[in-house]
Amino acid sequence: MQSHKNLTMDQVKVIEIKKSVFEDNDRAADELRGELKKRGVYLLNLMSAPGSGKTTTLIQTINRLKDKIRIAVMEADIDSDVDAVKIKEATGVSSIQLHTGGMCHLDAEMTRQGLDNVDMNGADLVILENVGNLVCPAEFDTGAVRNAMILSVPEGHDKPLKYPLMFSVCDVVVINKIDVMPYFDFDLDKCKEYIRMRNPKATVIPVCAKTGEGIDAFADWLIHEVHTWQNTN
Amino acid sequence: MQSHKNLTMDQVKVIEIKKSVFEDNDRAADELRGELKKRGVYLLNLMSAPGSGKTTTLIQTINRLKDKIRIAVMEADIDSDVDAVKIKEATGVSSIQLHTGGMCHLDAEMTRQGLDNVDMNGADLVILENVGNLVCPAEFDTGAVRNAMILSVPEGHDKPLKYPLMFSVCDVVVINKIDVMPYFDFDLDKCKEYIRMRNPKATVIPVCAKTGEGIDAFADWLIHEVHTWQNTN
Repeated sequence: MQSHKNLTMDQVKVIEIKKSVFEDNDRAADELRGELKKRGVYLLNLMSAPGSGKTTTLIQTINRLKDKIRIAVMEADIDSDVDAVKIKEATGVSSIQLHTGGMCHLDAEMTRQGLDNVDMNGADLVILENVGNLVCPAEFDTGAVRNAMILSVPEGHDKPLKYPLMFSVCDVVVINKIDVMPYFDFDLDKCKEYIRMRNPKATVIPVCAKTGEGIDAFADWLIHEVHTWQNTN
Repeated sequence: MQSHKNLTMDQVKVIEIKKSVFEDNDRAADELRGELKKRGVYLLNLMSAPGSGKTTTLIQTINRLKDKIRIAVMEADIDSDVDAVKIKEATGVSSIQLHTGGMCHLDAEMTRQGLDNVDMNGADLVILENVGNLVCPAEFDTGAVRNAMILSVPEGHDKPLKYPLMFSVCDVVVINKIDVMPYFDFDLDKCKEYIRMRNPKATVIPVCAKTGEGIDAFADWLIHEVHTWQNTN
């Protein structure tokens, strides 16, 4: 799989992702997951609406985990490389930018194109920050071990009613920007109730990525996930 | 074009939109626009990310305009009818809910399916509230006279860099939730600069839909648009 590579001023690798032609995405995703399992690499697919705070949450989480496990990040975006640069500058971990060329999601083959450009030697955890979109990314298995999503307080507690599939496919829902709860009509209990309507098993973790509040809980969830993935058959 | 119709408890009509098969969406959109022109109906396509405040902005705007022009609303959503009910309850104007059945956008033919269920007799303005998504809806001409979008302060001022097409295709960008500007790192000047990079002609209108601040400017823009559309050839 050929990808065009170049380096920005900040030396972040930018990969132009090609539209994949695989018809059976579920099979491609299962194959990718099998390969990752053999290599002991845990892939997390992180999704959210635009501006929910994926990158800030990742920076906080990575800074808590990077001395315990080896982490790499793939930042998917339609355009720009601001997120990959931010992650690299703020955490020092390996970070590449995937450009989707207008595409609204990543599937397993597109994820593989990204992984081909990640230094996976010794990596325990690769985090894919998906395109900011609550609709399309939910429809495509990327090959990740788990799907995580961030819902931010300003978006409103009714989002599980409006974007049911996204909440159904996510194993963990991080509720971000809880510091601004007093300024919005956001009912956390109602939000949790709506999430459980879509996915009774989902773990819900309220955080404020800006201050770091609650991030320990997400980091603990993640490192436990990685160790379990690496230590079971 | 057949659509399944039913009434909810609140007597809001819910239309299940079928995936359209038209290959040439641009042509279908131009045809629809031509028909609307003949009938003197102005169609506005309103887009945004999830939770940016489309419905609240519409309620405030409609309440300022409903005694001057005749308005109908089509609320598109993957699921739920909360928005159509809200609009009807808060403004009294005719409001129907379009269910996209998981689809991430509306094209011209899908918009037409909705319009077939709107009482257009005497309507001056029909507003389509598109699916909450900054990616896919930007790619499909719905047949609307103009595209409008809402960017809310909590999403961040960098969104025009990350979702270039959405900002390119919109004639007006409403910046909502300006009341919470003190709690977010949102640079309005930088945001305007980024919007103009994508679309030098875009009108930018800062508002707070919750309090109504700035809504007069958007309502003025809209009524001027409607009158111009109706009074020119």
